[in-house]
Amino acid sequence: MISAVVMTGPGAPLEVRAFERPEPEPGAVLLETLGSEVCGTDAHLWKGQLAGVPYPIIPGHVSVGRIAALGPATASGVPKDVSGAPLEVGQVVTFLDVYGTCGRCWYCTVGHATTRCPSRKVYGITLSADEGLLGGWAEYIYLRPGVHVIPLPAELDWRAFLAAGCGMPTALHAVTLGEIAFGDTVVVQGAGPVGLSAAVLAQLRGAGSVIVVGGPEVRLDAATRFGADAVLDIATTTPEERLAAVREATGGRGADVTIEATGVPAAVPEGMRLTRDAGRYVVVGQYTDAGTATFNPHLDLNQKHLEVRGCWGSDVGHVYRSVRVMARYARQFSWTDLISGEYALAEAQKALEDVAAQRVVKALVVP
Amino acid sequence: MISAVVMTGPGAPLEVRAFERPEPEPGAVLLETLGSEVCGTDAHLWKGQLAGVPYPIIPGHVSVGRIAALGPATASGVPKDVSGAPLEVGQVVTFLDVYGTCGRCWYCTVGHATTRCPSRKVYGITLSADEGLLGGWAEYIYLRPGVHVIPLPAELDWRAFLAAGCGMPTALHAVTLGEIAFGDTVVVQGAGPVGLSAAVLAQLRGAGSVIVVGGPEVRLDAATRFGADAVLDIATTTPEERLAAVREATGGRGADVTIEATGVPAAVPEGMRLTRDAGRYVVVGQYTDAGTATFNPHLDLNQKHLEVRGCWGSDVGHVYRSVRVMARYARQFSWTDLISGEYALAEAQKALEDVAAQRVVKALVVP
Amino acid sequence: MISAVVMTGPGAPLEVRAFERPEPEPGAVLLETLGSEVCGTDAHLWKGQLAGVPYPIIPGHVSVGRIAALGPATASGVPKDVSGAPLEVGQVVTFLDVYGTCGRCWYCTVGHATTRCPSRKVYGITLSADEGLLGGWAEYIYLRPGVHVIPLPAELDWRAFLAAGCGMPTALHAVTLGEIAFGDTVVVQGAGPVGLSAAVLAQLRGAGSVIVVGGPEVRLDAATRFGADAVLDIATTTPEERLAAVREATGGRGADVTIEATGVPAAVPEGMRLTRDAGRYVVVGQYTDAGTATFNPHLDLNQKHLEVRGCWGSDVGHVYRSVRVMARYARQFSWTDLISGEYALAEAQKALEDVAAQRVVKALVVP
Amino acid sequence: MISAVVMTGPGAPLEVRAFERPEPEPGAVLLETLGSEVCGTDAHLWKGQLAGVPYPIIPGHVSVGRIAALGPATASGVPKDVSGAPLEVGQVVTFLDVYGTCGRCWYCTVGHATTRCPSRKVYGITLSADEGLLGGWAEYIYLRPGVHVIPLPAELDWRAFLAAGCGMPTALHAVTLGEIAFGDTVVVQGAGPVGLSAAVLAQLRGAGSVIVVGGPEVRLDAATRFGADAVLDIATTTPEERLAAVREATGGRGADVTIEATGVPAAVPEGMRLTRDAGRYVVVGQYTDAGTATFNPHLDLNQKHLEVRGCWGSDVGHVYRSVRVMARYARQFSWTDLISGEYALAEAQKALEDVAAQRVVKALVVP
Repeated sequence: MISAVVMTGPGAPLEVRAFERPEPEPGAVLLETLGSEVCGTDAHLWKGQLAGVPYPIIPGHVSVGRIAALGPATASGVPKDVSGAPLEVGQVVTFLDVYGTCGRCWYCTVGHATTRCPSRKVYGITLSADEGLLGGWAEYIYLRPGVHVIPLPAELDWRAFLAAGCGMPTALHAVTLGEIAFGDTVVVQGAGPVGLSAAVLAQLRGAGSVIVVGGPEVRLDAATRFGADAVLDIATTTPEERLAAVREATGGRGADVTIEATGVPAAVPEGMRLTRDAGRYVVVGQYTDAGTATFNPHLDLNQKHLEVRGCWGSDVGHVYRSVRVMARYARQFSWTDLISGEYALAEAQKALEDVAAQRVVKALVVP
Repeated sequence: MISAVVMTGPGAPLEVRAFERPEPEPGAVLLETLGSEVCGTDAHLWKGQLAGVPYPIIPGHVSVGRIAALGPATASGVPKDVSGAPLEVGQVVTFLDVYGTCGRCWYCTVGHATTRCPSRKVYGITLSADEGLLGGWAEYIYLRPGVHVIPLPAELDWRAFLAAGCGMPTALHAVTLGEIAFGDTVVVQGAGPVGLSAAVLAQLRGAGSVIVVGGPEVRLDAATRFGADAVLDIATTTPEERLAAVREATGGRGADVTIEATGVPAAVPEGMRLTRDAGRYVVVGQYTDAGTATFNPHLDLNQKHLEVRGCWGSDVGHVYRSVRVMARYARQFSWTDLISGEYALAEAQKALEDVAAQRVVKALVVP
Repeated sequence: MISAVVMTGPGAPLEVRAFERPEPEPGAVLLETLGSEVCGTDAHLWKGQLAGVPYPIIPGHVSVGRIAALGPATASGVPKDVSGAPLEVGQVVTFLDVYGTCGRCWYCTVGHATTRCPSRKVYGITLSADEGLLGGWAEYIYLRPGVHVIPLPAELDWRAFLAAGCGMPTALHAVTLGEIAFGDTVVVQGAGPVGLSAAVLAQLRGAGSVIVVGGPEVRLDAATRFGADAVLDIATTTPEERLAAVREATGGRGADVTIEATGVPAAVPEGMRLTRDAGRYVVVGQYTDAGTATFNPHLDLNQKHLEVRGCWGSDVGHVYRSVRVMARYARQFSWTDLISGEYALAEAQKALEDVAAQRVVKALVVP
Repeated sequence: MISAVVMTGPGAPLEVRAFERPEPEPGAVLLETLGSEVCGTDAHLWKGQLAGVPYPIIPGHVSVGRIAALGPATASGVPKDVSGAPLEVGQVVTFLDVYGTCGRCWYCTVGHATTRCPSRKVYGITLSADEGLLGGWAEYIYLRPGVHVIPLPAELDWRAFLAAGCGMPTALHAVTLGEIAFGDTVVVQGAGPVGLSAAVLAQLRGAGSVIVVGGPEVRLDAATRFGADAVLDIATTTPEERLAAVREATGGRGADVTIEATGVPAAVPEGMRLTRDAGRYVVVGQYTDAGTATFNPHLDLNQKHLEVRGCWGSDVGHVYRSVRVMARYARQFSWTDLISGEYALAEAQKALEDVAAQRVVKALVVP
């Protein structure tokens, strides 16, 4: 029997349940879990802040495992990784948590906006535990036929990959949309996993300066260790002071590119103001509905000639590229330092609470 | 002596004053005015709603004239048009009202955002009548050395060009930023000169459908004559009804691209909602500070994966391209029908009031 | 029994064969053919100029039909069109000839270059007659589960759609890559179906001038009727004369954007020279290997700061947008005039020969 | 009196001549030279391979100096740097060698392609010694009013800046056009100053792998020290072997982005083949006319869906961003190691010959 953590509904205590070991159907893959991320979204799930969640679920959307079994070949052949290489038992892999993007709807085919495909489901979030081992906080994970699998290169420690977690592909998507030019001043709002990853990725776009606005201090310290040129603590500064500081650092103009990764509505108009005229502002942190914000369309948008880009979700490319980047620049950034604690399945409840309380930067569930 | 209309200050009655006929300095051009546009901005100027206006001014920023005299050659040669051809006395030309973009500041050279150059001045708006004939509501206009001059092709009636007026380059800039794809559904908010031009230009990008949201009826009728597939009157519909109508027309998705040209802050969050997920929204109509707007960053921006682009001002290219497009497609769109009245210099006050009251679609001052 | 034209191999006479009427499997659609295009590619197929063709095939890749029967619903529901609306018996539809794009390989998921997916097959080209009614020159066409179906709007005559044929989505792809700006001078090399469609689409991007370079005269006449501002006959001009003519028309600079649609290697370096410095050149007509071309990398590419874009194939979006654009602007362009002849199945051999000899602009097979 | 190296004509021995110390006119700046680059272009100049060079010239286009004197203020105020800060005597600065971009011609205003402005002149290349101290191989450099001045930040050693030299802004322009995505495999053809800079900048775009193709060994060793993941020596490999090696490293696909920096025409078709389908190829190294190249438009361009971008010259932004990037990432890349020798004015002839013979990676003239 296989143990897995089950979240039965909002607010209910997590349970560890036993599941049958599944035999992979054609095209499917069974992973023995090495570890799975605990992410802010898991806290949102537990608080019932996301719509359309089919409780009970097995949480854990970004995970790494060792291939334990492969299903038989299908008409399209044996299960393959994203590059087209056949998968092998024993390989250490991750996978795209998003499953079922249809490739046929208007958004997939005409709009080329696959993260808005209405058929997409997410491992650990919108797939029910009643349907199987479809989340990472479990001894094994069942990858249905069609799940996108990406091997981890030898030079990339799986703990490092999980330490960045889903923040990395999310940030990679946002920073890509930011279209940072060489030498740009980049402001990152938020010092959580997405913000830290964005601060790193901005350097890997050749930013001339990276300023992280956020808190608490433990996270700002991490930002500094990861190369931020300056940090601004929201607990000890006013928006006016932050605006003054960013302008001071940019010849009075403001940031060339700003990346929002906070989840706080008021951060959005502030971010518009922190950005220079004709700059670019990417909003990726407003993952749940936390209310409204007020801005001045003349001053904050039209006269500024500002570009604002909302950024939703990740696709295969973002995860594939995250793995490539983390492997290539592994020595420059010590991701594993971010891991404050590893939790067994039976300790998942505590992991969730520690993350919700921001007592840790990054927690892993390690079965 | 030369007569010109002078606006001495906010609210003060317009006056007609006499000026000496200037002798063009090296590189300068003297135009005999054929006509000049009366635009909503002139009403803003008269109400004192723009900052930094050096009253007294001669209004009139988009104008057409016949070259009356050319200044001597400079080190760079005789005065030339934007294409590099020498100008000749007798030619019918327009010119870019924006003057003095420095080509040397950070915005001009590094930011490539010339409409945010702090040195730019605008004929008829931010150049004082004390400095000369620097506005179009006058018998002659003095083009300083370096003003960008564009001849009107024979097939483009100067009245047609002025009928579109500054709305055309403004809309051309906005529609360019809209990156309309073939077959897209385009919503235009606003049926004034910018909105009508945007509705025309959307068709000249191959839009599959153009929906104009605005009023009053006389302007919506013009929109229909100019090819709009549907119009929605803001006087007789609620925002919810408009959203329902746009979704109904787009398989439930919303507009692919929306262009805002209203000047009303509340139009901005409405426009975000009228646009589909992963669509694009260009805000060009918030030309003066008319207050704030409230939106939901999660629903209206982040989860929508929406792109929002503020659009400020026009550059030489926008006016040059406007002339090219209006000349090429002149037979398809009857611009001169928009002209509700022509006013002599002595009637400029009435022109201003008619425009401010939206009693006319387009008024010209014809000295 | 159902009649279909079969091409058994390169050079062999076409045959009309009888097929069983298939019963649609779940998700499939059976079309009663209204008409199918005869395209230059069919002549290439007959001459054996394409690799990987699984003869025998039923030619005909762009077709229109009436839905005769629908297969049962699958797990994803009843068969739907690209917009998500359920298909109905009796609807007049077209479909994307490209079938089987996998949505899983590196090119589909990471490269976002679906026209380079190695799994794609094409109706009428790379699907064998041994597998069924998988081409348009037949009384019925069998659309396998997953084929992308697009209804024709009432305002779009199916003959008009076929008159443009596959040239339209191909040109739409190329013109999209051309990123034509308002008022640009566009040169189109080639006056066949792709070139004519490109000349039309350039006008629907607001080109300031469209110059078609090609032949023979019958095609250049069509180009003129479709709005080309000038035509240059390759039979009566030298490359030097054409270059001089294009420069003369553009203030000495050359075309802002050039679209190649010729199939002749030597046209490529000529097109580079016809394009202005810092312009853009799209190469879409080199569909088969017709040999090499020679150019000067310094003069023709590097110093010119030229952008050159090869363009391969079409995806769902290109066909969907073609239908939208042709329906919306149907009255402006009389596509059906291009149809020189309609051929019954038994006359398909003659159709092929007429097209190969360029005796017709466009031929249709109408069963 | 001021000493300067003068190149009197192609092939003639360099001379050291004495000049009067100029008094800066309004807006001008006099620099005391700290050092000036010796670049491959200087060898081209000496061999007479560039057209339009107004011999005699003072070579040296990328230079660093200390401000010795400032001209009086003009109507636009005191001389300022690119960011708008007033310049001060004693500051260590560089400047954009390109002077006189007009900001008024069609290319400057409509085409937005300032590196194709016909008025541009280049310090050390197309400005004559008869007009003054307009090149860097001199004790002092005279910066005319309007020359774009950029201070070097304290953390950027001026020798490091010159070690990268004009290769850095050139490469920065090319790599920007390359639009490298996170994790991309980037091939750089050429291991000279442009190629080495491109290899570094690719890493500062988050490339997943950088492969340098070139020679001789001393340069490939430098490439490896600067982080290249692999090098391919053109002296010991065939084009077929290089293609095989690049495909082997990319799952059979080829490079996502290739940057050409060789000057050899045959490298261009090879580079097209080294790049994957739907990839991007930037050609920046074909600076002089070295003859023609032959390619297959079907296989190498059209079917590949390849994008090829010629890249000419640098603008202010490229130099400004080069300074920002070199200062920010100075510790990661030891530029000064590239300097093989420093030469006094009297040794300039030897510097030129050492560079022409590729005996050195980088030489500086230090007066």
